[in-house]
Amino acid sequence: MEENSAIHPIRCRAAVCRNPGEPLVIEDIIVAPPMPREVRIRIICTSLCQSDIAFWKLKDLPGIVPRILGHEAFGIVESVGKDVYEVKEGDSVIPIFMADCGECADCLSEKSNLCSKFPVKIALGMPRCGTSRFTDLNGEVLHHLLSVSSFSEYTVVDIANILKVDPTIPPNRACLLSCGVATGVGAAWRTANVEKGSTVAIFGLGSIGLAVAEGARICGASRIIGIDINPDKFEVAKKFGVTEFVNSRSLGDKSLSEVINEMTDGGADYCFECVGVASLVEEAFSCCRQGWGKTIVLGVDEPGAVLSLSSFDILFHGKSLMGSLYGGLKPKSDVPTLLKWYTDKKLELDKFVTHEVGFEDINEAFKMFIEGKCLRCVIWMKKI
Amino acid sequence: MEENSAIHPIRCRAAVCRNPGEPLVIEDIIVAPPMPREVRIRIICTSLCQSDIAFWKLKDLPGIVPRILGHEAFGIVESVGKDVYEVKEGDSVIPIFMADCGECADCLSEKSNLCSKFPVKIALGMPRCGTSRFTDLNGEVLHHLLSVSSFSEYTVVDIANILKVDPTIPPNRACLLSCGVATGVGAAWRTANVEKGSTVAIFGLGSIGLAVAEGARICGASRIIGIDINPDKFEVAKKFGVTEFVNSRSLGDKSLSEVINEMTDGGADYCFECVGVASLVEEAFSCCRQGWGKTIVLGVDEPGAVLSLSSFDILFHGKSLMGSLYGGLKPKSDVPTLLKWYTDKKLELDKFVTHEVGFEDINEAFKMFIEGKCLRCVIWMKKI
Repeated sequence: MEENSAIHPIRCRAAVCRNPGEPLVIEDIIVAPPMPREVRIRIICTSLCQSDIAFWKLKDLPGIVPRILGHEAFGIVESVGKDVYEVKEGDSVIPIFMADCGECADCLSEKSNLCSKFPVKIALGMPRCGTSRFTDLNGEVLHHLLSVSSFSEYTVVDIANILKVDPTIPPNRACLLSCGVATGVGAAWRTANVEKGSTVAIFGLGSIGLAVAEGARICGASRIIGIDINPDKFEVAKKFGVTEFVNSRSLGDKSLSEVINEMTDGGADYCFECVGVASLVEEAFSCCRQGWGKTIVLGVDEPGAVLSLSSFDILFHGKSLMGSLYGGLKPKSDVPTLLKWYTDKKLELDKFVTHEVGFEDINEAFKMFIEGKCLRCVIWMKKI
Repeated sequence: MEENSAIHPIRCRAAVCRNPGEPLVIEDIIVAPPMPREVRIRIICTSLCQSDIAFWKLKDLPGIVPRILGHEAFGIVESVGKDVYEVKEGDSVIPIFMADCGECADCLSEKSNLCSKFPVKIALGMPRCGTSRFTDLNGEVLHHLLSVSSFSEYTVVDIANILKVDPTIPPNRACLLSCGVATGVGAAWRTANVEKGSTVAIFGLGSIGLAVAEGARICGASRIIGIDINPDKFEVAKKFGVTEFVNSRSLGDKSLSEVINEMTDGGADYCFECVGVASLVEEAFSCCRQGWGKTIVLGVDEPGAVLSLSSFDILFHGKSLMGSLYGGLKPKSDVPTLLKWYTDKKLELDKFVTHEVGFEDINEAFKMFIEGKCLRCVIWMKKI
């Protein structure tokens, strides 16, 4: 493919993962010009998501080094490759790891958010050709993460992974919709379609679980039960609409499903598994109400993890089970709705940002995130 | 509870299951008057369903003897117990094993067809009090089956399990909607909500599978793929709308999901498991399209059977899994729609009735059914 010859490589700072699980190295790198249908973006801020931590730790594929992590971000278009008509230099954008090509059967359907032209995969390079746009100063290739790689002052993203946003939306709010917060809110809104007055149970009160609570609150759920092993989370969770708390380590002689079934007189209307443990999905399934209960899987377990469900339960109890990748949101048509909810003060994004640091403190942000101190830590590329 | 003192016990013929798996014994029995909210029905005809065979064979609970089997039927109200206002003597009715009490949260909801006041259970007696209305001539209690017990000239059924039907509908057509055919058609219409132009895969071309095909055809599916181990079934299946056939015993070196995925360019929109084997549900799940594929479980596996699904598959592929008991149909609001479809010649019930016999030949009907010779065999209580 041909790059735009009028556009030159850029030398800039990036935080490179050189060794799995070890501090990122802030160093100068070279970011190549965008190829056709690609966009080069100046990252204004980026935020940390659990998946960044997971990929950072991984020693084997899909883990790889050297790599530029990061996939929640806000940026300004610096230049565009050939055949890019959707955005232009200076536009405000967020990258989204889920592509929305606008052409395939999935993107054209209201029912799917899984682009089949550029399926989510643990790609090491760009979606169209697989190659990298990053090299270090020795000429060594640096790998991409999830088609975004936002821990760099500049990155290159395919137009299918770019959403143009209203420039009046603050960068440190818009970036939250690239992944985690959108996933939770979307899971309640789009995947589960939570109804007004319904009862929701959320397994795991991390930022995804709280985003589910926020989504359920917006949808009008009347009871939102938060389940976690850490009772301290309840105070925070209340701000996101959680109305009741169950400490899954203090159940007495009852099982979690017995407790939830008693509290809800037969089960919650919607159960969301936000931890990533197959056995907890099974537990969530048994906590959801017969007749119409939906269990939604958001947590990512280890590859190969198996869910075991009773065949009888599936048939005789009228429950359903579904996954929710990126909350079932179609990036280019649904995320603008979330942004509008934010400007309408319906979706309260501010609550999610507990920390903000400068780029030079990115390793500190990793540390706080791992210690469970923050929901979302925004990392600004410029000194703050 | 008080029985209606103006109504007397009836002596009539019934086919009694006295020993599991052995021919039913046609003998005279006594049918008690209906208690409050119960209806005594003169059965005009009854049809055989796989569940009758399953219960007939069972040596241990939920199998039990002596018992009166049968749960697909058409009858005329002979008398009603106290506080029955919905039907009166002479009304045409079909009994339905799924209750629709009209009062509980489930019956009042559009989303559930699982009455929580009278949940489906392997009851041996009447829903409200658990006692039997049948005794033999020695005074021994005869047990009920699924709140219906239609292999008798008279039976007693709770009003929650009774649907009044238009008397112009032929008995040997109306009776089909008590269970099997309604289940299949409903699974396509109500549970899956099959869309016009979609692709459907049906695992198992027994009468339930063919009823799913009929439902999918009515919903406008453009491709209906039938999967069975017996290729002879394809000719019959074509009449029900099946457009393509896959012999799951002649796949060459491919797996069933590879074959279906190739045929459909990525999977069927809806997969229906109509056999009752947990591993086939897993196979069906892997045959359904990512992004929006639904797998619907209709087959009844052994109690304790476990479905094993990949946690990753659930999360990353946007598929869902659901059961369909009685096709997700609400007995009193949805079955009238199916009956209307029949009178409008949209739902072709005639095709399902392959055999008709007199009551004295009920054991012959069992034999034919087990040998796979019939889809539905109607048993008339009067000599034909």
